[in-house]
Amino acid sequence: MSRNVSKSKRKILIQFDGDEHPSVFDRVVAVDAGAEAVFAYGGVAPERVQPLVHGAIFTRGAADLKHTAIFIGGSDVAQGEALLASVKKTFFGPMRVSVMLDANGANTTAAAAVLAAGRHLDLAATTALVLGGTGPVGLRAARLLAGQGARVRLASRSLERAKAAAKAVNEVCAGERVEACAPQGEKELTEALAAVQLVIATGATGVELLSAEVRKKAQALRVAIDLNAVPPAGIQGVDVMDKATDREGVIAYGAIGVGGTKMKIHKAAIRQLFERNDQVLDAEEIYELGRKILGNSG
Amino acid sequence: MSRNVSKSKRKILIQFDGDEHPSVFDRVVAVDAGAEAVFAYGGVAPERVQPLVHGAIFTRGAADLKHTAIFIGGSDVAQGEALLASVKKTFFGPMRVSVMLDANGANTTAAAAVLAAGRHLDLAATTALVLGGTGPVGLRAARLLAGQGARVRLASRSLERAKAAAKAVNEVCAGERVEACAPQGEKELTEALAAVQLVIATGATGVELLSAEVRKKAQALRVAIDLNAVPPAGIQGVDVMDKATDREGVIAYGAIGVGGTKMKIHKAAIRQLFERNDQVLDAEEIYELGRKILGNSG
Amino acid sequence: MSRNVSKSKRKILIQFDGDEHPSVFDRVVAVDAGAEAVFAYGGVAPERVQPLVHGAIFTRGAADLKHTAIFIGGSDVAQGEALLASVKKTFFGPMRVSVMLDANGANTTAAAAVLAAGRHLDLAATTALVLGGTGPVGLRAARLLAGQGARVRLASRSLERAKAAAKAVNEVCAGERVEACAPQGEKELTEALAAVQLVIATGATGVELLSAEVRKKAQALRVAIDLNAVPPAGIQGVDVMDKATDREGVIAYGAIGVGGTKMKIHKAAIRQLFERNDQVLDAEEIYELGRKILGNSG
Repeated sequence: MSRNVSKSKRKILIQFDGDEHPSVFDRVVAVDAGAEAVFAYGGVAPERVQPLVHGAIFTRGAADLKHTAIFIGGSDVAQGEALLASVKKTFFGPMRVSVMLDANGANTTAAAAVLAAGRHLDLAATTALVLGGTGPVGLRAARLLAGQGARVRLASRSLERAKAAAKAVNEVCAGERVEACAPQGEKELTEALAAVQLVIATGATGVELLSAEVRKKAQALRVAIDLNAVPPAGIQGVDVMDKATDREGVIAYGAIGVGGTKMKIHKAAIRQLFERNDQVLDAEEIYELGRKILGNSG
Repeated sequence: MSRNVSKSKRKILIQFDGDEHPSVFDRVVAVDAGAEAVFAYGGVAPERVQPLVHGAIFTRGAADLKHTAIFIGGSDVAQGEALLASVKKTFFGPMRVSVMLDANGANTTAAAAVLAAGRHLDLAATTALVLGGTGPVGLRAARLLAGQGARVRLASRSLERAKAAAKAVNEVCAGERVEACAPQGEKELTEALAAVQLVIATGATGVELLSAEVRKKAQALRVAIDLNAVPPAGIQGVDVMDKATDREGVIAYGAIGVGGTKMKIHKAAIRQLFERNDQVLDAEEIYELGRKILGNSG
Repeated sequence: MSRNVSKSKRKILIQFDGDEHPSVFDRVVAVDAGAEAVFAYGGVAPERVQPLVHGAIFTRGAADLKHTAIFIGGSDVAQGEALLASVKKTFFGPMRVSVMLDANGANTTAAAAVLAAGRHLDLAATTALVLGGTGPVGLRAARLLAGQGARVRLASRSLERAKAAAKAVNEVCAGERVEACAPQGEKELTEALAAVQLVIATGATGVELLSAEVRKKAQALRVAIDLNAVPPAGIQGVDVMDKATDREGVIAYGAIGVGGTKMKIHKAAIRQLFERNDQVLDAEEIYELGRKILGNSG
């Protein structure tokens, strides 16, 4: 009966996914990052999470709790946040495991995009325009930029939604660095780009958010990041493979160009989950981790 | 094509769970007990089990069938029993795998509680009162106690349900050792405790079943076991961490005090599943296993 | 952070199953064939497959894509074919993983049956009768036989359905080798068996398709294969364990007699999936693989 006594526990990642079928993407990355068993749950609702979390925290001794962790994914970031809140509420005292939120890949993607920008710009002295800023990745990117001291213009088609989003981000960041805008047409978009050094496009697939013509008028622009992976490009002239590519004087990144870093951050975050049992990896923590592994001073 | 020929088969545990999401608790324990692959199925109904069991018994040769086993869990013990019946019905001749029932943790918890009592009492000479005796753990505890020769008073709020439960247990144990009672108020509860050496409380969370005052009047009482893990205690004055703790002359066990043994038994039972392909581990078998691993003669 | 860099990726098999609970049979075989992680999905519909396939093809580099593969199972072969079509449509260029279809075990079973026949007959010079020919295994067997140059009589109770099935098979095989028939009664069945060297019965459980009496009148018959595993036999006088057993001058195979080869082919196919990332293993490919591993010239 002494079997398994001296061996260290297998690393178990419990995947909570609001979608019917738990993400294959997240499962493969979990395996590749060293999770030895992945318990994948689909169709998980925040109110059903408690007994599952109890199973995570009541099965291993205090010293071994770090070998169990929770990953929250799914295509719906708002639901992912509700799941995270539910998971955290179930923890008490030292009875907890580390947990990571990356619904829709939003945290790792936004972190990779902002880290890419930080290679070329002093973010604290940067004004950034986030197109499609009310979407899950846009919100995370605005939040990370504001957290680094940047001024952020958060753009959406609807001024009302842009204002609500900017307010939400300012509350998280405890500042007034994010302002809303809803540029209609080339003239207003050109104005929104005035004095902007960084543009990040995170809009819906199939929508061009910035034409080459308008972009050329943006005199201050130095870095353009387009996170759309499917043609047409969100920023005209930026290729999906671009990775610090010079595009008529602007440093361009495409979705795949950013994707390698995103993947590195995702795997490193999974590995970090298993180092202690008390971590919550959300936008800022994942960004900091990315900064560390890239040796990027920011 | 000789690959894998000489290697022994990986140990596969197939988890059938009546709940929508298969228990994380049972999955983690399975992994920690040495199962190399856990196939977790949620929302399993007895009438849907046959093809799944066929997959267990028709895939490996006779000598390797012991490397596949079935675990039946879920929060509903009655459904677990129906699943077990369905699984056993699908087996035929040597075409079977070992199977364990531990829905709601009832078998391992009841075994751990009765084993704790057996450290201090000669169960064959004991009269026991099981409070909350119609619940899943209470039923199992009454059954194990009767099987060890104890006289059992099975208590519930409803005399009718207590009688039905006592009858069911007596049928399983082929004896008349269990009698029903439904004590209302302190006076009747004091009477129910007369000449009782052991009390086990397995009631619903949040309900105090036995006050300190009534307990003090129980002159014969030597061991008090409270399986409620969430305050208030089911037996006033017993702490959740108590483990053979002296509480005013009574030896007390709380839910966590019993939990360590429960976990040991659970893991040992999983490991034992993989020793032969013809075992059915239900209440008595799990209790016997617990006795063996604890070196408890009681 | 250099961890996992030099190690080869774990072999991941993604199991898509149209049934609510993904097949235990297919999962066990996957494990035994060397898949190191099996991601089992039940209730998978063709229109929900795309994001899951994206997770397979976008997570590992080109050199490592061969360590991820897809298995399509489930009890409904038509749905399995729709799933396969959906999976293939999601691939593009080199962004693909190898995929195998074996819904209802139809491909591996039909391959094993036709390979058994090929040990005793020159298939290109054979006339075969497939009883229950409109079922999933019958269709696959007819297709494989026609592909080997045999003439095939595809029999069903309904001539209409037999004709539709024969037409479908002829289209896949680009020939006119398969003809439909719907023999009613002993006389017509005796006619259908005229000049037939091989009969394969793949009918529904519990139905005798060929009596001993009629079989004895089939002068040319040399091989009889009955794929029904549950009594009564589909071909009277063939035992489920028969494996090249002489039954009154006819070489007989029963379901279990063919089952060993089926299992070998199934495992070999899973192993082959992980050799390259561009394979599609359907009826013909699985048959060819079986021929190779059996050293059967055919």
